[in-house]
Amino acid sequence: MKVNGLDYRAVWMEKEALCMIDQRVLPFRFDIVTSYSCQVSSNAIRNMTVRGAGTIGATAGYAMAQAFRDIPPGNMDQALIFLEQAKKEIENTRPTARDLFFATDKVYHAGIQALVKSGPQIAYQLALAEASSIADAYVFNSRMIGVYGNEMIPENARILTHCNAGWLALVDYGSALSPVYVAFKQGKNIKVWVDETRPRSQGAKLTAWELSNQGIPHTIIPDNAAAYLMSKGLVDLVITGADRIAVNGDAANKIGTLEKAILAKEYGIPFYIAAPLSTFDPECPDGDHITIEERDQAEVLFSMGPDKDGEMHEILTCNPGSQAFNPAFDVTPARLIKGYFTEQGIKTL
Amino acid sequence: MKVNGLDYRAVWMEKEALCMIDQRVLPFRFDIVTSYSCQVSSNAIRNMTVRGAGTIGATAGYAMAQAFRDIPPGNMDQALIFLEQAKKEIENTRPTARDLFFATDKVYHAGIQALVKSGPQIAYQLALAEASSIADAYVFNSRMIGVYGNEMIPENARILTHCNAGWLALVDYGSALSPVYVAFKQGKNIKVWVDETRPRSQGAKLTAWELSNQGIPHTIIPDNAAAYLMSKGLVDLVITGADRIAVNGDAANKIGTLEKAILAKEYGIPFYIAAPLSTFDPECPDGDHITIEERDQAEVLFSMGPDKDGEMHEILTCNPGSQAFNPAFDVTPARLIKGYFTEQGIKTL
Repeated sequence: MKVNGLDYRAVWMEKEALCMIDQRVLPFRFDIVTSYSCQVSSNAIRNMTVRGAGTIGATAGYAMAQAFRDIPPGNMDQALIFLEQAKKEIENTRPTARDLFFATDKVYHAGIQALVKSGPQIAYQLALAEASSIADAYVFNSRMIGVYGNEMIPENARILTHCNAGWLALVDYGSALSPVYVAFKQGKNIKVWVDETRPRSQGAKLTAWELSNQGIPHTIIPDNAAAYLMSKGLVDLVITGADRIAVNGDAANKIGTLEKAILAKEYGIPFYIAAPLSTFDPECPDGDHITIEERDQAEVLFSMGPDKDGEMHEILTCNPGSQAFNPAFDVTPARLIKGYFTEQGIKTL
Repeated sequence: MKVNGLDYRAVWMEKEALCMIDQRVLPFRFDIVTSYSCQVSSNAIRNMTVRGAGTIGATAGYAMAQAFRDIPPGNMDQALIFLEQAKKEIENTRPTARDLFFATDKVYHAGIQALVKSGPQIAYQLALAEASSIADAYVFNSRMIGVYGNEMIPENARILTHCNAGWLALVDYGSALSPVYVAFKQGKNIKVWVDETRPRSQGAKLTAWELSNQGIPHTIIPDNAAAYLMSKGLVDLVITGADRIAVNGDAANKIGTLEKAILAKEYGIPFYIAAPLSTFDPECPDGDHITIEERDQAEVLFSMGPDKDGEMHEILTCNPGSQAFNPAFDVTPARLIKGYFTEQGIKTL
């Protein structure tokens, strides 16, 4: 999507450099971070320079490809041990994200076959081609999610979304926001309620930034205000992304998604999950089998942003000495989900 | 309750000065603000130097008494106009709070009767006596709410609370937290989950501060995490305060309370409201008749707190230029409320 008139993806390869929009400093700064090694790219996933299901997947794929270029001199056994370790390192960064495992697996296997046959240089080329094709697939699939999801957005819709499942999260276009972009482009009169999404405020910071860039009417609300809006008849549908969807349809997504799904059920409002098929995990039978990442309590205790002079500060927003609990995701049971927007159409159970 | 070894109320009269713990700067500073006029006291309610149903009520009562001392020279008609205006000014500060109207009414009528009979000096004395008795009643009633509410707290209970309905909010002891204090004093092994309570973070800032002062085990959670905890069986009961309770049992309280009540119902967890009888409004038939205060969007867009050197900053935590919607309260329908902890026992509908 366009930023200041130029087209960007959330992550892309430029010659030898993996380039990533730094989502930790958005919306206050627009910085591009580069990485020349698997380890640095892995770390960018872990420290949330990049985040969001598809963008994590694409970055993980590129990182896995970089590992083939990083293979140190030695014999084939040593190379295989090195690659296996690199794969584990990438996979340990964000355990809830299905797309991460999907991408590392694909790139790993593409590279390994070439490594045995043709050596590390060709292996790197083929791994990189696989990673690029994964990133391109996210872009294509996101676009299709938008085309299908748009069918469920009526004229004058007021859409509630949680966290950021826009183009920053899916390389381009987005999952939950892609239908919004299509609807707006078609001239539908729509409005988006943007959940702030504490503790990291991806809604207030990233989704609001995306929607602002496209000129789409939106209003940020505290996460506490969703039931109030629903009780007043001000929400027509809810769309969120997902980080992993089990075989039975249970969906892990940003903490608080479960709350919104329960509220939507209470008020008879359709609740949709938008995600590419790569987010559906055929090896995960149900939500109980999804590992929920617990993140540092500092994310709850401290907030970062600019003061009125634009100077950035990290401030404490809680009682000094009190502890916080910070589960990053929750699981919404399939019975609360009306449908899944995918690149192959809208799935229902 | 004790702060640094000394006993405090949230608001009290000291000779001619109305003294208030400044709840805007807690937990980072413990400051006492004083007011010598109705107007300054009114403003302290409006700008949330003091907040919470009972503390607003007590402060409003004292402010109304101060108005009798503030009567400018003139005839009786002018005095009555002045007092009527002062009453309206107080009542316009926080329209959702039932206790505010309850207290101004009582003090106004006590003072007016004396004014006509005995002049402004005696009127002030009697109005002040009435205001003091209202404050004392909050303290007594809060204590009784604790005694009764404690009966519903089992051994090893994990209690979720929203916002601050502790002693800061009810002059002393509290409504939702008073049973927690009683249970803890009795030696029950309890733990409190403290909702952060965006946008003003009264949970993370005030409730966590209160519980820390008393050494009660507690953990702050993002408002988004309540359903996750409930889905994992980690919440045994929910207790919140209320700002106004209608005749049919619908209860207005801090934005987000409705969400927690819906979640509690989903998971079969008892949801209780704790409030003195002064919060029950006999003139309000149901929740649809409760005015919901909408506050400045700046409360959502900006956060205040100290950096690591203790210097206070106000920072932007949202996309620059995006707007926010900030309803301060929501209404929980009676059907979601298992019982009401009051000074006369536990009421059910």
